[in-house]
Amino acid sequence: MTAFHSLADIASFCATLTPGDPGCAEAVATRQAQLTKPPGSLGLLEELVAWLARWQQRETPRLGRVEVLIFAGNHGVVAQGVSPYPAEVTAQMVQNFGRGGAAINQIAHAVGALLRVIPISLAAPTQDFTQAPAMSEAAFLAAFNQGYFAVSKATDLLCLGEMGIGNTTPAAAIAAALFGGGGADWAGRGTGVDDAGLSRKIAAIDAGLALHRTGAPLEIAARLGGRELAAIAGAVLAARVLHIPVLLDGFVCTAAAAPLAALGDGVLDHVMVGHVSAEQAHRRLLTALGKRPILDLGMRLGEASGAAASVSILRTALACHTGMATFGEASVSAADAAST
Amino acid sequence: MTAFHSLADIASFCATLTPGDPGCAEAVATRQAQLTKPPGSLGLLEELVAWLARWQQRETPRLGRVEVLIFAGNHGVVAQGVSPYPAEVTAQMVQNFGRGGAAINQIAHAVGALLRVIPISLAAPTQDFTQAPAMSEAAFLAAFNQGYFAVSKATDLLCLGEMGIGNTTPAAAIAAALFGGGGADWAGRGTGVDDAGLSRKIAAIDAGLALHRTGAPLEIAARLGGRELAAIAGAVLAARVLHIPVLLDGFVCTAAAAPLAALGDGVLDHVMVGHVSAEQAHRRLLTALGKRPILDLGMRLGEASGAAASVSILRTALACHTGMATFGEASVSAADAAST
Repeated sequence: MTAFHSLADIASFCATLTPGDPGCAEAVATRQAQLTKPPGSLGLLEELVAWLARWQQRETPRLGRVEVLIFAGNHGVVAQGVSPYPAEVTAQMVQNFGRGGAAINQIAHAVGALLRVIPISLAAPTQDFTQAPAMSEAAFLAAFNQGYFAVSKATDLLCLGEMGIGNTTPAAAIAAALFGGGGADWAGRGTGVDDAGLSRKIAAIDAGLALHRTGAPLEIAARLGGRELAAIAGAVLAARVLHIPVLLDGFVCTAAAAPLAALGDGVLDHVMVGHVSAEQAHRRLLTALGKRPILDLGMRLGEASGAAASVSILRTALACHTGMATFGEASVSAADAAST
Repeated sequence: MTAFHSLADIASFCATLTPGDPGCAEAVATRQAQLTKPPGSLGLLEELVAWLARWQQRETPRLGRVEVLIFAGNHGVVAQGVSPYPAEVTAQMVQNFGRGGAAINQIAHAVGALLRVIPISLAAPTQDFTQAPAMSEAAFLAAFNQGYFAVSKATDLLCLGEMGIGNTTPAAAIAAALFGGGGADWAGRGTGVDDAGLSRKIAAIDAGLALHRTGAPLEIAARLGGRELAAIAGAVLAARVLHIPVLLDGFVCTAAAAPLAALGDGVLDHVMVGHVSAEQAHRRLLTALGKRPILDLGMRLGEASGAAASVSILRTALACHTGMATFGEASVSAADAAST
């Protein structure tokens, strides 16, 4: 793996990605058909195992090392009053992650996942995109490459998430620039802005779009995004190279990965979304990307919490796949052929 | 706890149930407001902890002993060709549970739950309800009491499920009798009947309804139900008495509990539904009961699989509640009062 030196580098790399191994997914389907249950009756659990197999390129997938990776960044656009929390909270929450006090610490532990937190230049927020591009191409590439090299090839499943006060605003701006619409279509209350805050947020997004909405997907990601979003995109691409399936978290995390989808067929095929956020724009974004979330629990926290919460579902799915008896082993009669 | 000697006994008992402890739910909400996250941002996870607290009557709920209880029964109505599987599969699957080969064995282990399986008179199927009442009042009471006394008071959370070839047919008949409509409204493909099987199933349900649809809720449960369904209803009531929150599984399990809902206000308030089945009638039944499922994974297996799969979400919820730092402990700034 080598670093990317330009946005064009990333784009051409994305155009050459290979699909996973369909033979491994077929091996999963063959075994599923023999297990002591009606065909297809485990629903999404069966699909999840086939998806893991395809992208791990293993006939029997593994969930030995599940890693949660959180990138943190700060945003110049908070100057527009788009969040009820001060920007200092980003660094305070990174400390909280380090001390084990945040939701994601408890969730990662509960689902048996490792947690790593990577703050990126918290003392140097991006530019306020209502005034200038959030990042230069060089700044975007630095963050993208940091995410790209943060992924360990020993990982069996990667959960991605973010922390960044104000970052639902760049997420909404990216989504609008990629998929159409304006601030009012993609802005939500984030961590809890009031009506006045929501109006400021919509105005900031629209101002950013007026300056930066045209351009290639990665140019949009640089001009309207954030460092932690760029790093997430880099990590998504690294996981593809390293045969690691990815679970995305909520709206911000999905918006961070979305520019990659436009760079080639199936660039996000190794990616699923752990949870659909209560932030309404997430559902709209998932529809635009053709992704169905695993969970819908009304969460809207970020910090990889929704992605990590869904890991338990994947563990359950894999446990069924590897542990169940076949009809033959269990001497259970299969369905009457005349009736099925 | 004493056995019930008549349907009227059960009905009058249900009219006297007390609510859980709202003070314990309030204690949960108070702590949630202090944890290092935006208010409400854990969504359903916060509600689940409050629900556990209310019904366990503990300010800090526990999930030490989680039990999965499966009741199994056989059904005379299978003579009408309503399932692609022969009735022998009920006993074969009970053996499979005992040997650890079924989906529920893997799921229970994955979520840290104990599994107990209680077959009820498998060699004596209920009557074919297209010809006669499925059960006499005495037979219903015997199964109901068996379920009632099967619940251990040491349990912190009870997952209920069933195994019974053909039992989506009595489930549909009960739902139709309680909530209106006919076979075509409530019949689905169950474990996988083809078009001809579905037609036979609808006809069987309509024939049963023509004979037995009038009557009190428990009379309907006796005449159109099954032994494992009766036992589930008994276990639901025992859990209420013993301060144990309950997770129901899919369509059959929910239909088994549904007659209780008509016997008093809030009889099923200590009950949540772990998963909405791909069997379409389940969603309709949940709407009728005012229940929102925790998971929607397209499963349609029964055997408590959907209830047990959701246990991991409750464990995650409780881990956040008990393990997270407060704003004060973590020195994280709370939201700006002017903006929230």
